[in-house]
Amino acid sequence: MSLYVQKFGGTSLATAERIHRAARRAIRTKLEGHRVVLVVSAMGHTTNDLIELARATCSHPPKRELDMLLTTGEQVSIALAAMAIHAAGHEAISLTAAQLGLVTDSAHTRARIQRISRDRIDRELAADKIVIVAGFQGIDVGGEITTLGRGASDTTATALAAVLAAEVCEVYTDVDGVYTADPWIVPQARKIDRISYDVMMEMAAVGATVMHSRAIEFGKKFNVPIHVRNSLTDAKGTMIMAEEPGMEQISVEGVTLKEDLATISLNAVPNTPGIAGRIFAEVARNHVLVDDIVQNVYDGGKYANLGFSTNAGDVLEARAVCERIAADLGIGSVEIDEGVAKVSVIGLGMRTHAGIASTMFDALARAQINIENISTSEIVISCIVRQEDAPRALRFVHDAFELDKTDGADNIQACAPKEGSEASPTPS
Amino acid sequence: MSLYVQKFGGTSLATAERIHRAARRAIRTKLEGHRVVLVVSAMGHTTNDLIELARATCSHPPKRELDMLLTTGEQVSIALAAMAIHAAGHEAISLTAAQLGLVTDSAHTRARIQRISRDRIDRELAADKIVIVAGFQGIDVGGEITTLGRGASDTTATALAAVLAAEVCEVYTDVDGVYTADPWIVPQARKIDRISYDVMMEMAAVGATVMHSRAIEFGKKFNVPIHVRNSLTDAKGTMIMAEEPGMEQISVEGVTLKEDLATISLNAVPNTPGIAGRIFAEVARNHVLVDDIVQNVYDGGKYANLGFSTNAGDVLEARAVCERIAADLGIGSVEIDEGVAKVSVIGLGMRTHAGIASTMFDALARAQINIENISTSEIVISCIVRQEDAPRALRFVHDAFELDKTDGADNIQACAPKEGSEASPTPS
Repeated sequence: MSLYVQKFGGTSLATAERIHRAARRAIRTKLEGHRVVLVVSAMGHTTNDLIELARATCSHPPKRELDMLLTTGEQVSIALAAMAIHAAGHEAISLTAAQLGLVTDSAHTRARIQRISRDRIDRELAADKIVIVAGFQGIDVGGEITTLGRGASDTTATALAAVLAAEVCEVYTDVDGVYTADPWIVPQARKIDRISYDVMMEMAAVGATVMHSRAIEFGKKFNVPIHVRNSLTDAKGTMIMAEEPGMEQISVEGVTLKEDLATISLNAVPNTPGIAGRIFAEVARNHVLVDDIVQNVYDGGKYANLGFSTNAGDVLEARAVCERIAADLGIGSVEIDEGVAKVSVIGLGMRTHAGIASTMFDALARAQINIENISTSEIVISCIVRQEDAPRALRFVHDAFELDKTDGADNIQACAPKEGSEASPTPS
Repeated sequence: MSLYVQKFGGTSLATAERIHRAARRAIRTKLEGHRVVLVVSAMGHTTNDLIELARATCSHPPKRELDMLLTTGEQVSIALAAMAIHAAGHEAISLTAAQLGLVTDSAHTRARIQRISRDRIDRELAADKIVIVAGFQGIDVGGEITTLGRGASDTTATALAAVLAAEVCEVYTDVDGVYTADPWIVPQARKIDRISYDVMMEMAAVGATVMHSRAIEFGKKFNVPIHVRNSLTDAKGTMIMAEEPGMEQISVEGVTLKEDLATISLNAVPNTPGIAGRIFAEVARNHVLVDDIVQNVYDGGKYANLGFSTNAGDVLEARAVCERIAADLGIGSVEIDEGVAKVSVIGLGMRTHAGIASTMFDALARAQINIENISTSEIVISCIVRQEDAPRALRFVHDAFELDKTDGADNIQACAPKEGSEASPTPS
């Protein structure tokens, strides 16, 4: 008997009616002969509301207490989902992370899953119940309540699917699947039928918000297909799965946009061994989130310009840290550039395809958009541009690679539209 | 080093500002040299809101899932209270029932406490922290989440105070203490300084809503003084404590009103042994709540009229049960009287004081109020009157016993005004 893990995000559970809809979906799957494990997020804006409540109470809430607070959102959802299934005449049982045995380390607000017990779930499934699991939460070995970090109900779902050897992990959301670009910005963007774990992870890292990259990691590691689909329709969405032969044909698979960034440049850095390490150790110690790092040497390798991008919200702290380091290390100057965004093209084996980078730069030039930093990796090329130019940049690049014209299952394109609950820059 | 248990109800935690106020109270007590354990209810109307959410989802929610849902309210409160104490620069830690080890039986929505572990609380107190405990909730031996029933955060508080051998259990609420009668109905009602556990339990049973009688039971059993006081002022409230010599002097200690009742009368009941037992076994099996029972025999003891009062909400079920029984047992007729209320006078050793009952009946006669059923016990005399006459009945009886004129600590009077969060007819 095959097992389906079905995950419903906050927008898909925002009202009693939507909870009933999710319940009906689970019941239908069970009646089709499958065992079903539901993983749910907090309803609608619950998590944001709780965070506001916390901030109104304490400017720097202890992380342990933040986890204590936020995990109530998912607990409400599992209870209501179980009631909705009960109301439809079927058997269900809700389980918290503690009851299930989803054990994490003790890093509050960003805990990592250590092990998941099958015992309780197996027992409830054997009793013919639909099992409903609270996403986002965990418990450490001391019984402390933890959370897995932003968007981590997806992680709960794929990790459970892996442990239970599920046939598929269905991620229900309020969009039809993964797109070649954000359709709100690029109207010609196409829904992708199939995409590989690697490309999807890269997408998530450079701005696709439909799924969290850690969740995809679990899918890849245990080879669980992830089906991203719309909770309001029966249409097939996007299947995230292992690479297939046909997938190598296309270099550029999608374009993404990551907004609200800032760049910090340290100019005239003495280019001696260990300097970059010292700088980023200090940056990390101050909890400044580092996005891309770019460095160029000059003056015969004696000096370097070292830049990195960070979230706009971290810029004040980043500046303070860097100015302190600059004074300590005798670095020339620190420059801050706020109001920038990153446009990326993603594809498998891009470096082996000549001309991809130049096509991208050319597209931006035709759009009269100035490129600030550039960084490249095995499957991504990213350009920092002014925030106000970013949507236009995305359209021009999407157009330059003719992503709207490719179609069919073999032509895997990748990117994700913004989505309500999952896109929100807050935990759960 | 003495230990204080401080319990804050929903109205005392309804806003961030009130949570800070509760936090300041706990901190002040700690700075005065005491160890402090806070017990909190859900904020404001949270529990009612959650019950509405449950009803919108399922007409008969499984009790296990109702407990799963409702316990989130107190979990939110403990986290926020800990944050508020942290914001004021002090150390606190929140504990769920599972983390604390408050073990109950498995009767969801009305579980009984079986044992409370001291280990975790003692460890946190030894680390100089204010410990914040979620009221109302428990955990059974299988790790299932339970709740203790209506108003049961008080029970959590007094049970904890008992286990921890606390110096006092302070119950913070939105009234000044326990009154000789509900001041909303009897403006002359006086606040009582001290009252015995027994009289207070009797008060709670016949309509005083300021504290739950189960909570007082724990106080009595383990001799923990309970101080009912206003969370918005520093004034002393009412101390519920063991009987003291001075307490015996006054017979009538207070008057109470219990509204929205109905009476059911079974007339011409064959008065053979076992009949009453069979009737009330059947009534209980149908979950009809029975308030007072009165029976009079007639016709040389051959027949009896047997009546009982019940909540107005149970009257349809009560009628159905009684008509079935009447048919089975050959009982003459079943009469229902809706829209009645019960006025009671309470005091220690009332039967030994002649004239109390007649003073009460006389007062009602002067008010031209007809008395329906009468029942008496060791410390209570109750009269059923028409609902619309009830407030006037309360004032006349209060006046007849001159309860407004007695004062000083020795003249213990008893009754409680209605109070926001504690009075609400819903769990927690």
